[in-house]
Amino acid sequence: MSGNLTGHALLGRVEELLGRDLRAADEIFDSELESWHPYVTDVVAHVTRYRGKRLRPILLLLAARATGSISDAHHTLAAVVEMIHAATLVHDDVLDDADTRRHVATVNSRWNTETSVLCGDYLFTHAFHLAASLPDTLACRMIGRATNLVCEGELAQVHERANCGLTEDEYLRIIDGKTAELCALSCFLGAHFAGAQTDVSHSLQQFGRCLGMAFQIADDLLDIVGKEDSTGKSLGSDLDQQKLTMPVIRLLATSDDVTNGRVRELLASPITNDRRELLEYLERSDALDYAQSRADQYVSQARMSLRAVDESPARVLLEEIAEFACRRSF
Amino acid sequence: MSGNLTGHALLGRVEELLGRDLRAADEIFDSELESWHPYVTDVVAHVTRYRGKRLRPILLLLAARATGSISDAHHTLAAVVEMIHAATLVHDDVLDDADTRRHVATVNSRWNTETSVLCGDYLFTHAFHLAASLPDTLACRMIGRATNLVCEGELAQVHERANCGLTEDEYLRIIDGKTAELCALSCFLGAHFAGAQTDVSHSLQQFGRCLGMAFQIADDLLDIVGKEDSTGKSLGSDLDQQKLTMPVIRLLATSDDVTNGRVRELLASPITNDRRELLEYLERSDALDYAQSRADQYVSQARMSLRAVDESPARVLLEEIAEFACRRSF
Repeated sequence: MSGNLTGHALLGRVEELLGRDLRAADEIFDSELESWHPYVTDVVAHVTRYRGKRLRPILLLLAARATGSISDAHHTLAAVVEMIHAATLVHDDVLDDADTRRHVATVNSRWNTETSVLCGDYLFTHAFHLAASLPDTLACRMIGRATNLVCEGELAQVHERANCGLTEDEYLRIIDGKTAELCALSCFLGAHFAGAQTDVSHSLQQFGRCLGMAFQIADDLLDIVGKEDSTGKSLGSDLDQQKLTMPVIRLLATSDDVTNGRVRELLASPITNDRRELLEYLERSDALDYAQSRADQYVSQARMSLRAVDESPARVLLEEIAEFACRRSF
Repeated sequence: MSGNLTGHALLGRVEELLGRDLRAADEIFDSELESWHPYVTDVVAHVTRYRGKRLRPILLLLAARATGSISDAHHTLAAVVEMIHAATLVHDDVLDDADTRRHVATVNSRWNTETSVLCGDYLFTHAFHLAASLPDTLACRMIGRATNLVCEGELAQVHERANCGLTEDEYLRIIDGKTAELCALSCFLGAHFAGAQTDVSHSLQQFGRCLGMAFQIADDLLDIVGKEDSTGKSLGSDLDQQKLTMPVIRLLATSDDVTNGRVRELLASPITNDRRELLEYLERSDALDYAQSRADQYVSQARMSLRAVDESPARVLLEEIAEFACRRSF
């Protein structure tokens, strides 16, 4: 609960510093997605209701403020990274067959799978179209490359489903692609387009990457120990889909043969009661604490990367977001 | 059968004129999609087996030859348009739940829906990444815009499914987005990057658009009257999915109330036997001939647009491809 409150307070301060810029980005986001077809307009209007923390636009704009000043290009890029994120969410919901996202019905449950697939494509192609409105191709190239890595990470994750032999390194490589890459890109673009020196832009990129890693590990923990009503999405879905995350990987790597065998059995047929039993195994081991400590380590690394920029209100907020990323309850 | 033979002879002459350039484009296509992950490599290798007529790269390269000469940028762009086309095919197969494509198992039947969705995304993002390797943003902007329209057309099509009141104009607008747009883009980019004057590039774009319209109407006809073994894909799928195309729209618009009512009944519960009955209604009406004549009209328009360029072997091939597009049997 305190995590939740801290989160709201933090977002309030972000709003104070970036409110005008976030609204400028929202306007670009909305106007880019306008369509001649009323059905497309309906679906897009629905997707914008997913809009949550807007972590990636915030990172991009704070990186710009921490290293220089915010320009029109940043508003466009903030809309682009949010649109790419929205595209991956819509397609994730197809993959996960999820019913709700941020307390709102998913596109596939409200309409159908076809619409979800095409809506995700529509968001992707508009993100690229918008990126191409900038004067040079650098943003397009970097956004193209980052989204390649996001897809590759997600494909690897689908492939490794139900693989109880997945190592921690393999898991880290997957989340580096599917989550950290877009955070890293957001921070890099923010700094680069604010005129930061190359090494400073790369430090910000590294900050974003570590924050993204911490964020994903915390998200995976939340899927196991979170409360459905505060997260606004279906929980335990990783286990239902036999998607191995840090705590389970740790449990399998450190438990005796009997426990190991039983845990593998539970993972192979994941129903609600079994999940309860799996949770008990996790709680009796060091798996949950271990995963939290790994997230904390990434946050420390993220903070280290921020030393490349001078003290400023934007830098303070970046630090606090990093702290919050690994301690969140929603 | 004669259509088929003509097709092969035509492709032979295209190969003679463009063989080296098509192979250069293929090499770019393949090397762009290389991945660190063996699973991604497997899926991509499978998708490249879909490679069929390569209509869009051929249009792009012929448009370049008809208006100037082919450069490295054309090879890159030819790979880009084929990659976008491949992405839409992979996602179409999810939408259609199809089992085979060009005699090869679809990604969703060989692996699973998740892999198809992500594989399509992977192709889309790589296409944009590749487009961003060109020196200016024009190609990115145009490719972004064209792919927006493709998605919009496809979304509109999903929405209009089972709508027996769909008009011919609405149908034409849908196929203009989902098919003609990418052909128009290919021809425009070919001419533009060969240094053609703006009005010439636009004539080529118009050529591509009309050809795409004819091609799609012919494809829709083929879905009704074609033979499964020569097309290499499941037929009658438009009807199974209650997707209204030109012949059925014409039949509904011109038949008496009794026929109209029965046709609507057949469309509402489309199973194989009913399709036979529907086909009889189509054959007894002018619907099939009408659809063919509309395709022919688009081909005439396409040929008119070609008057903007001087006579050349490339222009002759463009004309013949247009003729072939509306008379194909595969």
